[in-house]
Amino acid sequence: MAVFPFHLQARDGNARAGSLTTPRGEIRTPAFMPVGTVGTVKALTMEQVQATGADIILGNTYHLMLRPGAERVQRLGGLHDFSRWSKPILTDSGGFQVWSLSQLRQMDRDGVTFRSHIDGSQHRLTPARSIEIQADLLGADISMQLDECTNFPCSPEEAEASMKLSLEWGQRSLEAFGDRSDQALFGIVQGSVYGDLRAESARRVAAQGFDGIAIGGLAVGEGHEAMCQTLDLTLPHLPHALPRYVMGVGKPIDLVEAVARGVDMFDCVLPTRSGRHGQAWTWDGPINLKNARFAEDLEPVDARVNSPASRDYSRAYLHHLIRSGEYLGAIILSWHNTAFFQDLMATIRQAIKEGRFAALREDLSEKWQHTRSSPKPPDPI
Amino acid sequence: MAVFPFHLQARDGNARAGSLTTPRGEIRTPAFMPVGTVGTVKALTMEQVQATGADIILGNTYHLMLRPGAERVQRLGGLHDFSRWSKPILTDSGGFQVWSLSQLRQMDRDGVTFRSHIDGSQHRLTPARSIEIQADLLGADISMQLDECTNFPCSPEEAEASMKLSLEWGQRSLEAFGDRSDQALFGIVQGSVYGDLRAESARRVAAQGFDGIAIGGLAVGEGHEAMCQTLDLTLPHLPHALPRYVMGVGKPIDLVEAVARGVDMFDCVLPTRSGRHGQAWTWDGPINLKNARFAEDLEPVDARVNSPASRDYSRAYLHHLIRSGEYLGAIILSWHNTAFFQDLMATIRQAIKEGRFAALREDLSEKWQHTRSSPKPPDPI
Repeated sequence: MAVFPFHLQARDGNARAGSLTTPRGEIRTPAFMPVGTVGTVKALTMEQVQATGADIILGNTYHLMLRPGAERVQRLGGLHDFSRWSKPILTDSGGFQVWSLSQLRQMDRDGVTFRSHIDGSQHRLTPARSIEIQADLLGADISMQLDECTNFPCSPEEAEASMKLSLEWGQRSLEAFGDRSDQALFGIVQGSVYGDLRAESARRVAAQGFDGIAIGGLAVGEGHEAMCQTLDLTLPHLPHALPRYVMGVGKPIDLVEAVARGVDMFDCVLPTRSGRHGQAWTWDGPINLKNARFAEDLEPVDARVNSPASRDYSRAYLHHLIRSGEYLGAIILSWHNTAFFQDLMATIRQAIKEGRFAALREDLSEKWQHTRSSPKPPDPI
Repeated sequence: MAVFPFHLQARDGNARAGSLTTPRGEIRTPAFMPVGTVGTVKALTMEQVQATGADIILGNTYHLMLRPGAERVQRLGGLHDFSRWSKPILTDSGGFQVWSLSQLRQMDRDGVTFRSHIDGSQHRLTPARSIEIQADLLGADISMQLDECTNFPCSPEEAEASMKLSLEWGQRSLEAFGDRSDQALFGIVQGSVYGDLRAESARRVAAQGFDGIAIGGLAVGEGHEAMCQTLDLTLPHLPHALPRYVMGVGKPIDLVEAVARGVDMFDCVLPTRSGRHGQAWTWDGPINLKNARFAEDLEPVDARVNSPASRDYSRAYLHHLIRSGEYLGAIILSWHNTAFFQDLMATIRQAIKEGRFAALREDLSEKWQHTRSSPKPPDPI
């Protein structure tokens, strides 16, 4: 029995609209979670993030355990008080960043020992320590099990071994988490792009008794098509009663296509990261404000988006700010993109409730076709 | 007859409180102008700047003429519309940055030719071109005459020649400016630290018919004592009826001491620049949030300052943000410092009106004594 009531209000094809009720507030699904890496959604105040309509943000265990340190965050009142975000927070387990950022990583059956990318100091993450950091020290509303992040591409043998280790770590995470009345724990499905492994992982994770289920190992270079295919191979094996979360996804077209397959939750650094680089996501697709054609364009970024960032500033001004390396350019575009992603999710939710999601999907997937990620070429030997 | 009515409401010793009335709004004096270098007060939205109580901001002609270009700003509706600041703007003449930033500078009697520090492109500023940029293209409410910025230290002979050239350029600036009913032009007193030159310059600039008078050539390394002495040697020679503006000043203690001598207007990058470097100016003096002693300090920066930036964020959180190089650290501290400088000016104005400025000055100058700038040692030979 999941700790947070998850109520599905409407279905339209495989797409679902609903809400996950937590003590810190309701999360309307499908939901996009802005990423607050080290206790800040980059370049934004929490008031700005909240005004975009975000019901929940994500915090990164790896970053926070290194700086300022999980015990310190606890002494300062937990992550909500520390960062002034009173709504729900989901934390990742730290695993993904250990794989992508840390140095001198050493894996064993019980966990992973690694050196900080900041100062080289040594740290260790185990399933139980990750839960302690997330649930006890940071005070996350939703914690994630520690998993092993499979490389992409990888052989079926590697994918299977990794998927089975993640299952074992999922079990240890559940034991460490125990029974809690106001915090939830999500498990993670692995198996790379292999249908049989994904199916097995999905069925076994679903049986473990988590409060929600994440699909990991995507957004790692497989490209849009393979991501969609992997979701097609995975989602039929997941229970309808639990929220489904695709980690690290994605571009607007990825969100639309994943929702169409039955996904309820997402997180991605794209809105803020691309904002810092001058890119604005709009209903007409992405534009880069650095481009000379915006130098005297007095139109706003996208007046259809419900945010001062989207309506009040001319593209010419943003072009100038980005070209000049000014903070305000990064601020406004991060703010606009965060608002656009929330508006997109609100539009999707409304379409599902009104039974017109298929038409919306067709329209947007057509319009945003050119933004589909290609598979990342394998690293040179 | 100055174009903007300047009304002195109260005097307390030599300190004056009043207001300068412009078509775009009233400027309460003594006033501190946040610096919006390239059309943005760094790291802040104009809404945040306005909420701190600023009545006027400063724009930099040198920066704006290079990027995005003065003609472009005009085509985009002028600097107010471009940057979304509807209250008054004062622009500098460009001279100071030509001296401090540009490359391959070549002076002649009529102006200065220089290369951009951004792309090496060649530009020329003359008194008339500076007025054209400021008043016609950017649309400044208050323009400054082009002056030659004397080096510090410099010989009396150099200071005299430079001061006389600035007088001549002041005359040409007035001619180029002509009669305007809704824009003002300020002249600039030079003369380095030499009393006789400052007195001559002050008397002659005062006779030229400007709408206000600036004291230039300060905040260039002379230190707090020499700045105060130079003001003592200059201000008695200025008319009471015009606003007096000390350019590029300064620290809170400089503002208090300059107001005590009869100065009405100031500008400085200090609030935003030091904010980006982790420094917060408070009623108890400056603190640097990078310092380890703030790592678990749950107090706000300074709860007496009337701004969310000053009251809502713990020093521990700001310490973490600054140490992590996060935008939000620079944003909050720039915002706090801008609010503190405005609160300081409001407190000063109120004290003058209530005849208790002497006590305020004694209290603050004593408390902030340790922040007085020392003279900059001469460059090594």
